[in-house]
Amino acid sequence: MKKLTEKMILEANKVLPNAYAPYSQFTVAACICTDKNNFYTGVNVENSAYGLTSCAEASAISNMILAGEKCIKCIVILAGNNLLCPPCGGCRQRIQEFATATTDIHLCNNTSVLQSINIDELLPLAFNLKPK
Amino acid sequence: MKKLTEKMILEANKVLPNAYAPYSQFTVAACICTDKNNFYTGVNVENSAYGLTSCAEASAISNMILAGEKCIKCIVILAGNNLLCPPCGGCRQRIQEFATATTDIHLCNNTSVLQSINIDELLPLAFNLKPK
Amino acid sequence: MKKLTEKMILEANKVLPNAYAPYSQFTVAACICTDKNNFYTGVNVENSAYGLTSCAEASAISNMILAGEKCIKCIVILAGNNLLCPPCGGCRQRIQEFATATTDIHLCNNTSVLQSINIDELLPLAFNLKPK
Amino acid sequence: MKKLTEKMILEANKVLPNAYAPYSQFTVAACICTDKNNFYTGVNVENSAYGLTSCAEASAISNMILAGEKCIKCIVILAGNNLLCPPCGGCRQRIQEFATATTDIHLCNNTSVLQSINIDELLPLAFNLKPK
Repeated sequence: MKKLTEKMILEANKVLPNAYAPYSQFTVAACICTDKNNFYTGVNVENSAYGLTSCAEASAISNMILAGEKCIKCIVILAGNNLLCPPCGGCRQRIQEFATATTDIHLCNNTSVLQSINIDELLPLAFNLKPK
Repeated sequence: MKKLTEKMILEANKVLPNAYAPYSQFTVAACICTDKNNFYTGVNVENSAYGLTSCAEASAISNMILAGEKCIKCIVILAGNNLLCPPCGGCRQRIQEFATATTDIHLCNNTSVLQSINIDELLPLAFNLKPK
Repeated sequence: MKKLTEKMILEANKVLPNAYAPYSQFTVAACICTDKNNFYTGVNVENSAYGLTSCAEASAISNMILAGEKCIKCIVILAGNNLLCPPCGGCRQRIQEFATATTDIHLCNNTSVLQSINIDELLPLAFNLKPK
Repeated sequence: MKKLTEKMILEANKVLPNAYAPYSQFTVAACICTDKNNFYTGVNVENSAYGLTSCAEASAISNMILAGEKCIKCIVILAGNNLLCPPCGGCRQRIQEFATATTDIHLCNNTSVLQSINIDELLPLAFNLKPK
């Protein structure tokens, strides 16, 4: 049986060619596994107004929410250059919104995990604002 | 035969309950129809750091890109309060990135179109930066 | 006496060299004139995570708010390439938050106004969400 | 002689009432001290389209860039509720763009430092994309 992260890397690899990165040429794909063991993928979507760019992680989260799920068990992130690609600070905050104490981020190349790290390690002392 | 926009409104209605809007309580859903007549939906995904919020239109666009499509024929937008909900300026720019001269935005309630408007009317004199 | 827009263009030109645009090479400067006839300038500030970029208009608005003002009479926008540079959709929404029915956007080169346009023309049917 | 951070807290306190936070009621102010020992302040600027919100830290950075400086020695962050307010992930990335290995973030209330932490501790394994 294939390990979970290997399956997730396969899913991320499948969608990576669809990343829209004409401005940076830096393509990224992500695959979330939820607490219900469902997968949700995403790729980055750039915009000519750079500030309106969506990251791959944000796209995967949007897909998870769209499907009615809210709990990230782990997430695989890989980039087209095949090098380690940590999430930007913004995406750490987005992951944190739907994370638990055990949510893992797997930084991968196109075949394997390069480094695994917990959300609390990537975003220590996280900002939180309770809904009113 | 049901009209295209009616089908799109149905799809948007289906996903609207999944919108994640604990901070504003303002839920939004969108449904894109591409030039290949495929549908891609999205809902808003807020964040406790407000600036990291994703709009419903951005989520729908992410889904379209993820699937390998890049041309928006039209898009339905509707809000949980059932009132006319025009896209914010940011999403007009995001739609414009993947629009043609005939891309229509249908502002709807949960049963019908309230107002239809072209992207060039919603974002006249659009900002564009050619990829290098 | 110099006309108001000429003074604003001078102010925008002064700060333009400070724009931080190592990723796009596309520098932009803005100068707001408030209803109290004070000037607030801004330049774009890019980020290696493109989505965290700040536009020049957003920076000028931040400065205005910081100083305790909230009403934009008009705004000058000019780009380092000296060509007409309309605000992105996101910035139209940001301007709209602090605009009146008569707020004008002056799209300029480094010496003169190329085109003037009202915020309602640039962002018709604007999205608005009342504070709770 | 007043300590540096005390002066920065005073500056942040001065501008805090100007924060524009009608949607969250959560006001934040920041004060940067650069390597040239100049201060640049900022407050949060919300938008009815939540995703277009600017954080206080982003505003302070915009001001620093506007003035032609690019190196953050330290930054004070304080919130209107007078409780510890860590920067969101997005702002950690924005600070990182202009930080050095010794850049400190001072999380304060309106009179004193509650906790000081290095940018590398707040944003370990930072995302970076070299300009082309």
